[in-house]
Amino acid sequence: MDIPASSVEPSRPRPRTAALPTRTLALGVIGPGRVGGALLEQLRAARTRLATQLGLALELRGVATRHRMWLDCDDPQLDRRAGAQTWRPASLDAFAAHVRGLDGPAVLVDCSASEAVADRYADWLCTGLHVVTPNKLAGSGPLPRWQAIRAAVAAGSSRWRHEATVCAGLPVIQTLRDLLDTGDTLHAIDGMLSGTLAWLCSRHDGAQPFSMLLREAHAQGYTEPDPREDLSGTDVARKLVILAREAGWSLSLEDVEVESLVPPALAALSTDAFLDRLGQGGLAGLDIPLAERLARARAAGCRLRHVASLDTHGRARVRLEALPAHHPFAHSRLTDNIVQLRSARYCDNPLIVQGPGAGPQVTAAGVFADVLRIAEAQEARA
Amino acid sequence: MDIPASSVEPSRPRPRTAALPTRTLALGVIGPGRVGGALLEQLRAARTRLATQLGLALELRGVATRHRMWLDCDDPQLDRRAGAQTWRPASLDAFAAHVRGLDGPAVLVDCSASEAVADRYADWLCTGLHVVTPNKLAGSGPLPRWQAIRAAVAAGSSRWRHEATVCAGLPVIQTLRDLLDTGDTLHAIDGMLSGTLAWLCSRHDGAQPFSMLLREAHAQGYTEPDPREDLSGTDVARKLVILAREAGWSLSLEDVEVESLVPPALAALSTDAFLDRLGQGGLAGLDIPLAERLARARAAGCRLRHVASLDTHGRARVRLEALPAHHPFAHSRLTDNIVQLRSARYCDNPLIVQGPGAGPQVTAAGVFADVLRIAEAQEARA
Ligand SMILES: NC(=O)c1ccc[n+]([C@@H]2O[C@H](COP(=O)([O-])OP(=O)(O)OC[C@H]3O[C@@H](n4cnc5c(N)ncnc54)[C@H](OP(=O)(O)O)[C@@H]3O)[C@@H](O)[C@H]2O)c1
Ligand SMILES: NC(=O)c1ccc[n+]([C@@H]2O[C@H](COP(=O)([O-])OP(=O)(O)OC[C@H]3O[C@@H](n4cnc5c(N)ncnc54)[C@H](OP(=O)(O)O)[C@@H]3O)[C@@H](O)[C@H]2O)c1
Repeated sequence: MDIPASSVEPSRPRPRTAALPTRTLALGVIGPGRVGGALLEQLRAARTRLATQLGLALELRGVATRHRMWLDCDDPQLDRRAGAQTWRPASLDAFAAHVRGLDGPAVLVDCSASEAVADRYADWLCTGLHVVTPNKLAGSGPLPRWQAIRAAVAAGSSRWRHEATVCAGLPVIQTLRDLLDTGDTLHAIDGMLSGTLAWLCSRHDGAQPFSMLLREAHAQGYTEPDPREDLSGTDVARKLVILAREAGWSLSLEDVEVESLVPPALAALSTDAFLDRLGQGGLAGLDIPLAERLARARAAGCRLRHVASLDTHGRARVRLEALPAHHPFAHSRLTDNIVQLRSARYCDNPLIVQGPGAGPQVTAAGVFADVLRIAEAQEARA
Repeated sequence: MDIPASSVEPSRPRPRTAALPTRTLALGVIGPGRVGGALLEQLRAARTRLATQLGLALELRGVATRHRMWLDCDDPQLDRRAGAQTWRPASLDAFAAHVRGLDGPAVLVDCSASEAVADRYADWLCTGLHVVTPNKLAGSGPLPRWQAIRAAVAAGSSRWRHEATVCAGLPVIQTLRDLLDTGDTLHAIDGMLSGTLAWLCSRHDGAQPFSMLLREAHAQGYTEPDPREDLSGTDVARKLVILAREAGWSLSLEDVEVESLVPPALAALSTDAFLDRLGQGGLAGLDIPLAERLARARAAGCRLRHVASLDTHGRARVRLEALPAHHPFAHSRLTDNIVQLRSARYCDNPLIVQGPGAGPQVTAAGVFADVLRIAEAQEARA
């Protein structure tokens, strides 16, 4: 993994031309994978514009992968054109310390899917580092860790933002927060939070068995490497837990009633064995029950959709639902995510956010927007 | 107009129990009408929660109407229970000076629809006051005034926020800003930006003349006092200008191609004369052309919708359009607003925000969220 050379910015302040007041924010990116890589690219492309238009200098101080890390101090004479880079063995704590530096605000951006990294958030926040992440593990994982994060945020002035964990770049968590912070009362959240399942449900019209669609989705890269991860509903349940916690319910993953679409016999297989079976043809254990449910839904004039819902009692469910044809989820577009918020103020008609809710570019943009929110809060210096 | 007594908060800091770091933001509200009144009520209701949960103290320093104003310094011994209040003749500059005070951040919230108030924004911003407003006049009015506001914001650290001018509490302007600030390229904005026109279009099915629906909407309070203001499309055009300017196009109202639904003969009438004619029965000049367009649209399998659009060349249009039945605008819900953003990242499927886009409560909440955004950016002090 090479860091895009021009995203490497020296830590020392540079002379500026105008008297434009400038905010500086130091950054460290953990996990330069699909999302992290797209983020580095977006940061690099935005750099000049942010400086001239917003008076904002984002200063990349390091990048860490699982095994190695690059720190800008290692490359003081970095030849940008050649892109030569020095890597050293990864150490999360040394990385955090370097990114924090001696003064000025700094943010760690966790683009991994690692528990080990999520375990560090609370400590980092306590030392004054901000944390931004698309990693769902902290928001949906063990309650004590999440509570430690919230406590660290409440005690200091560090921020923890994770907008991109739910529907990537779509404004969902901030919108929910704004409702609650301005004193609205939440009645319900309903959503289709998996683009993969949305696609499968909207294509599942009885013309071909469900497993054929699944094979097609897998071949096109719409699913996780093991498509049963999508079908299990766990990833959707994680997003629902994140929203529930934002709404003030201290839910855990175990509290969500999740209906897995994977029958036990198929759940028992290894990934290879499952993909093998999927490649060979119809999976009766999956196809027959789903065909039956589709037929029942259609007989009632409904469509089958994969829905996550949180009600006013904090009850969280993830399951296939038969929805009437006029329901907004019934005619959503292919892989779109959709979130519907009902509240005291949005009671007759809900507030709806809809659109593509995954993919490296839009996820990175969601992370980037969170970074900008933190940067905005930094005082400008002329 | 009485200020809700408990929203009156002394300007002096009060003792706090915990060591929670606290941000303080002084506020002045101009225009305690429907939106401003709802905002004062929301501020009052949120006060304790904001202090304990967010460590944020919002301090109301004054309220101004067109002719008189209340300043908290006039009521040092205010008997809250009795609600006795001292008013003095309004002076916008004296009001601003009092709200600004001697130190600490302060925000003026303009909930009027006044040009005179919008004329003051740039000066206020230059003196360090933040400005938040649902008033569309500055964002869509004369370019020089708008440019002076932007220049004042760029030169200092004051913010000007006007999220509620477009679709009230729905997250539209911030979402657009996030796309652009993170380096996305806007391709198009399309929206139904008038709840009234959305309702009229979706109810207009040929069963009764358009003017009968208009009469019903007027009777139910869905329209402006003079319903021709809705039909003219000007208010929608103002919202489109605001979005276009956010997107970097220096448009003026005159640049928008607006199709008014009001035929010239009806436009010439006084409000009373128009309402009189509307009350008496069908308005052939309005009904016949619309019935024809509806018939044409239906023959083509389409629905008529009132659409505002901005394309990639900065061309802005507001008009009735015949849209295919599968278009998301074709099955939007009654009075809902809907905004669809297409960009380099949201190209296959757009990013969509939908929901109620008017009404004092949701508009005030949009204003309140802007105030919170500014408060967040203030440094906390332990
Ligand atoms: N892709 C999406 O559409 C999407 C949408 C929403 C949210 N997300 C979330 O975004 C995160 C990243 O997704 P992705 O698709 O970019 O994953 P990815 O391509 O697998 O990238 C993950 C990156 O994290 C690094 N990493 C793993 N463990 C680490 C550790 N302990 N310390 C430092 N680095 C570590 C990996 O480095 P090595 O190569 O060294 O292991 C890799 O660079 C995930 O949490 C995912 O759930 C993704
Ligand atoms: N209502 C909505 O659903 C909605 C939605 C989006 C945006 N907005 C915008 O929000 C703003 C307020 O709407 P509204 O429905 O609340 O209007 P409103 O009920 O008519 O209230 C307007 C208030 O502004 C005051 N005012 C007028 N001129 C003033 C001046 N020069 N100085 C000080 N105060 C002045 C009025 O005071 P006096 O009584 O003394 O004249 C009144 O208190 C408007 O700009 C509107 O376009 C409203």
